[in-house]
Amino acid sequence: MLVAVDSIIFGFDGYELKLLLIQRGFEPEKGKWSLMGGFVQPDENFEQASSRILKQLTGLKNVYMEQLYAFGDPARDPEERTISVAYFALIDIHKYEKQLSDDYHAEWFPLKKIPKLIFDHSKMVKMAQEKLRYKAAFHPILFELLPERFTLPQLYNLYTGVYDTILDKRNFTRKILSTKLLIKQKEKEKEGSKKGAFYYKLDKRRYDSAFHSFLNFIPNPDNLK
Amino acid sequence: MLVAVDSIIFGFDGYELKLLLIQRGFEPEKGKWSLMGGFVQPDENFEQASSRILKQLTGLKNVYMEQLYAFGDPARDPEERTISVAYFALIDIHKYEKQLSDDYHAEWFPLKKIPKLIFDHSKMVKMAQEKLRYKAAFHPILFELLPERFTLPQLYNLYTGVYDTILDKRNFTRKILSTKLLIKQKEKEKEGSKKGAFYYKLDKRRYDSAFHSFLNFIPNPDNLK
Repeated sequence: MLVAVDSIIFGFDGYELKLLLIQRGFEPEKGKWSLMGGFVQPDENFEQASSRILKQLTGLKNVYMEQLYAFGDPARDPEERTISVAYFALIDIHKYEKQLSDDYHAEWFPLKKIPKLIFDHSKMVKMAQEKLRYKAAFHPILFELLPERFTLPQLYNLYTGVYDTILDKRNFTRKILSTKLLIKQKEKEKEGSKKGAFYYKLDKRRYDSAFHSFLNFIPNPDNLK
Repeated sequence: MLVAVDSIIFGFDGYELKLLLIQRGFEPEKGKWSLMGGFVQPDENFEQASSRILKQLTGLKNVYMEQLYAFGDPARDPEERTISVAYFALIDIHKYEKQLSDDYHAEWFPLKKIPKLIFDHSKMVKMAQEKLRYKAAFHPILFELLPERFTLPQLYNLYTGVYDTILDKRNFTRKILSTKLLIKQKEKEKEGSKKGAFYYKLDKRRYDSAFHSFLNFIPNPDNLK
């Protein structure tokens, strides 16, 4: 059996949540849209394979990445049995450099306008979206998608995009500020509106300690429903 | 590369959370304690392989099972590169029949007294425990470990066992009953104490609808910390 990794790469441009797709450069399914993937090499574990491929496509290292699921349907690749270990990655889209490689044509798609994908890649994307929603409800994971300085309207767009829902703006802002994860900057972003919106930065120290703090409130069957 | 599945099988006897382990019947590591596992066959997906192996060892079908993680360290099996897709299963220990197969000696171990395991199996067990804790905080998943009729003291033992902590008994009972997932029975269990404890059954209809109800309260960044 062949063993591959595939990456669901999420990015956020301040307005919309997006997905990085490539046009497959070889048969089967040449020219069709696909997730970025590749075979696991003899000396690599899955994380290493996934990082290598992400670096190849985006030029980025040290990106937030997480194993999503192992897909093993015998018929998922019609050519030869290939299992795929899928990873999702969250990147700051502004750090992404265009067309690093000529081997494949890469393009960002808004999550709501994903084209038809090869094999079981649509299923992978759907599962990655669900996992992102699940995780983002308890962990400040979405900040991985933001640049160093961001505004509250951008943050609001990000959350409403991930959950595909409208949130009460005032309430949302109050909740986010109450986490004390954000540090207000003196400068304003002025492209989005006349009035402008203050930039914020993440309090890295608080963020790092908050990220895994989830277990602090787990042994509480309050939520058992 | 070889592709295997390994199963972390949890059971609960009313007092303690336990893990089903086997003594490996072949080299390498013959005679050592191990999770139950096997190779994925050409016509099987991972779930099917995992179910087949679980059936083989325990005689049980239709068991709650969930993919945990794919382990792919190049050196995890010293003989030949083997990746393992790990599943965890929750079974009602009372339905388990002893020694279905002579091929391996299977034994239940309390989670606190797990022997040294082969390869990366200890890591798998640890990760499965963490996932069970995480999931059980939001979903009534632990009921999968209980027999049809159970008592509140048993339920209490189960939760304190999973979280390895002491919970306020009165508070815990109140919370659990407030979920309305339980139906009180007329009969009492009398082995545990002189006074006895009423049996409860799960309200299957409510349980099924509650199980995936989590998404109802996700789009709520309240918990963002």
